[in-house]
Amino acid sequence: MAQKPSIPKGTRDFNALEVAKRSYIMNIIKEQFELYGFQPIETPSFENSDTLMGKYGDEGDRLIFKILNSGDYLKKIKDEFSTFVKTSVDGDLDKLTYDINSITKQISEKALRYDLTVPFARYVVQHQNEIEFPFKRYQIQPVWRADRPQKGRFREFYQCDADVVGSTSLFQEVEFVQLYDAVFTALDLKGVTIKINNRKILSGIAEVIGAQDKLIDFTVALDKLDKIGEEKVKAEMRSKGISEEGISKLQPLFSLEGEFGTQVKSLKSILNTSKIGLNGIEELEFIDASISKLGLKTAKLQLDVTLARGLNYYTGAIFEVAAPVGVKMGSIGGGGRYDDLTSIFGKPDTSGVGISFGLDRIYLVLEELNLFPKTITDATKVLFINFGYKEAMTCLQAVTKLRQQGVKAELYPDCAKMKKQMTHANRRNIPYVVLVGEKELNSGTYTLKNMQTGEQQQLKFEDLLAVLK
Amino acid sequence: MAQKPSIPKGTRDFNALEVAKRSYIMNIIKEQFELYGFQPIETPSFENSDTLMGKYGDEGDRLIFKILNSGDYLKKIKDEFSTFVKTSVDGDLDKLTYDINSITKQISEKALRYDLTVPFARYVVQHQNEIEFPFKRYQIQPVWRADRPQKGRFREFYQCDADVVGSTSLFQEVEFVQLYDAVFTALDLKGVTIKINNRKILSGIAEVIGAQDKLIDFTVALDKLDKIGEEKVKAEMRSKGISEEGISKLQPLFSLEGEFGTQVKSLKSILNTSKIGLNGIEELEFIDASISKLGLKTAKLQLDVTLARGLNYYTGAIFEVAAPVGVKMGSIGGGGRYDDLTSIFGKPDTSGVGISFGLDRIYLVLEELNLFPKTITDATKVLFINFGYKEAMTCLQAVTKLRQQGVKAELYPDCAKMKKQMTHANRRNIPYVVLVGEKELNSGTYTLKNMQTGEQQQLKFEDLLAVLK
Repeated sequence: MAQKPSIPKGTRDFNALEVAKRSYIMNIIKEQFELYGFQPIETPSFENSDTLMGKYGDEGDRLIFKILNSGDYLKKIKDEFSTFVKTSVDGDLDKLTYDINSITKQISEKALRYDLTVPFARYVVQHQNEIEFPFKRYQIQPVWRADRPQKGRFREFYQCDADVVGSTSLFQEVEFVQLYDAVFTALDLKGVTIKINNRKILSGIAEVIGAQDKLIDFTVALDKLDKIGEEKVKAEMRSKGISEEGISKLQPLFSLEGEFGTQVKSLKSILNTSKIGLNGIEELEFIDASISKLGLKTAKLQLDVTLARGLNYYTGAIFEVAAPVGVKMGSIGGGGRYDDLTSIFGKPDTSGVGISFGLDRIYLVLEELNLFPKTITDATKVLFINFGYKEAMTCLQAVTKLRQQGVKAELYPDCAKMKKQMTHANRRNIPYVVLVGEKELNSGTYTLKNMQTGEQQQLKFEDLLAVLK
Repeated sequence: MAQKPSIPKGTRDFNALEVAKRSYIMNIIKEQFELYGFQPIETPSFENSDTLMGKYGDEGDRLIFKILNSGDYLKKIKDEFSTFVKTSVDGDLDKLTYDINSITKQISEKALRYDLTVPFARYVVQHQNEIEFPFKRYQIQPVWRADRPQKGRFREFYQCDADVVGSTSLFQEVEFVQLYDAVFTALDLKGVTIKINNRKILSGIAEVIGAQDKLIDFTVALDKLDKIGEEKVKAEMRSKGISEEGISKLQPLFSLEGEFGTQVKSLKSILNTSKIGLNGIEELEFIDASISKLGLKTAKLQLDVTLARGLNYYTGAIFEVAAPVGVKMGSIGGGGRYDDLTSIFGKPDTSGVGISFGLDRIYLVLEELNLFPKTITDATKVLFINFGYKEAMTCLQAVTKLRQQGVKAELYPDCAKMKKQMTHANRRNIPYVVLVGEKELNSGTYTLKNMQTGEQQQLKFEDLLAVLK
């Protein structure tokens, strides 16, 4: 019996148009990455499990796709079996207990990449003697996550990352803001907001309100301000054990508005006793002042103290990019500085900072705003109609010459009914067809038909080439 | 303890230069594919196991990378456990028996793509109502095989495939020969040999020598002619039970030489009683005659009756491309016609034909013959030296303007010692540096240093741009 074909949930097939649109976005990102001095690297789709496990928290470990060892992968774990056997000597299999993580470890030694950051850290450490630091690399490759699929969330998706490691200079942060602006401007996606925050400010606030140990709870609550409002955020903080006195100190945070400078002023009043908090503000001021001098093309830089993404490893600046006002879409980019990413692989004291572009979401935004160029679908320009071997051979000679001149040309492969061949050209949106019959064979000409206007011209090859080129 | 980082055997990291060289090859292949009217598609990295298993023979099944189900994947197979338990009640685990394939089926439902052909067949059937036939698609994506890694054989590698389905026209085969010629010409790899054979000829020969049931044994032996010589091939055929009489009929095969026409003549004499064999010859003659008329740029078309690759599914033409004489390398491309690939997924009677390019081997050949263009490494053109905040900001303004004009420019992020910064430029092969100090700040100029000649010029921005653009 033939199988009814399907693909795993959360994965996608891409047709020619979709591939073209995705390539359009990726090529623009790539071009800007290179203008900014980033160099491409690529890492394997799967890594040793050791490299990935334990780097993304328990939830991350669970979402990593593991690859089964080859051959008789059970041979190695007969000892585990012995546990099964002992546990279930009474035959009651429901009482069988086992440690699934420990079994997984023994039957699976490789896992699919979960993001591009950890493989990059591994790459930097592994190749540190060949790398010239500061090292600016970009990487555009798929990653895999066993997440529950939903609208806009897939189990296989591309990440587009640029990172610099080996320098603590804040000019890097400045350039990443410019890079975001350059990419979205090149994509003609005007009016994005580049939100910026600093982990040190969050730490400072936690310090000031006496909740250093509750930094995560505190930022998770604060992060919801936009969605659930001031009162509910306060309630959540209370429920997490943050004191009334602490919460009252936060009051200015809830009404932070206006220009960068105004916001920074309020922040300074909150953080005036926190060294780390004031240091975070200084960093923000450096970036803002530099960007003001350099100017942005179409994006806007905005301080957002509620921004806390990736708190687990960001240590300085935190970035997130929001689509233009009016487009309902989560963040289309994000990033930040991490001071010690490579230490897990044995190379401490290597500060890094990087940003990422959300390909799938950018795609949806460009689609919604109708920003893909019309020419993106430019495929075959001309189809030669097939009237039989002799005519077809003459056509194929012309087709060959056209291709050598860079014209995307095709011969219909079969001597089918003319109507069928014309329909084929129409369905594929091929703008021109060429007809070569007896008359054209005798005169060495080609009848070119414009499929949109219906207009026909009988041309010598040179003129045909001129029209099509 | 920090882990010592490594990657799984058979996989590779690619640095910037390697990515650039690989992209160079892939872009040329892509460009020619599109000139020939092929459209890109992409399929997911993993497919349902059902889609892949059983399509590549037992050996193939073994080499497919399987992905472990998420969550408690053992829960489902308690019954299998019960077999373990029963088998090992005496505690002698060495006697434990189990069916590893049946267990794998239950703990793994997805597998990494093994090639691009089966996913393509699945795609065609699944999307048949949206596809306009004949359908010309190309696909350039990685595949994974749990093969024993060795020189030039990896566990993750790219395939570059172009296929047409939905037409039996031999013009497709003709165009594929042209396409091979076009790609290798564009890569400046002159003198490749496009070997061609036809499955029908092999069937015909087997028929004539009375060994239809031994077609595989017969072709496997014949395929070794180049390597082990006539006598050993005959010995192998004998050992497989092919009769002396049959082998003697093959005699003309062992001395097939010379032009296409001469070889075809000998073949006809062997195959004069086989309808299918003569049909195979006709097909070859059509292709050869057409190519003779159309001409090839740099490649050579050659009949090779010993060619039998992919016998399992090829039904007509068989292609293989050999590197230019003098380069020791296996085939750098291959393909053929398959009459019924999509029937496994429920769509019979859909003839297809396709070819593939071996990216890794082509890379090695271009490397050996020194054929990668020098400009492939063109990365950052100019590095601005950092003498402190004020100077750096002026530099960053210039860098920003240069990038907007398409010049790859960078600012060294830290105000490090000048020597260190110059060394950085040298190590990265950046051809120019710009120095902006007090003098330049005051005069609004930039000192441009050519890193190769050492020559220095003090320039206004417009002149700087002119030099660098």
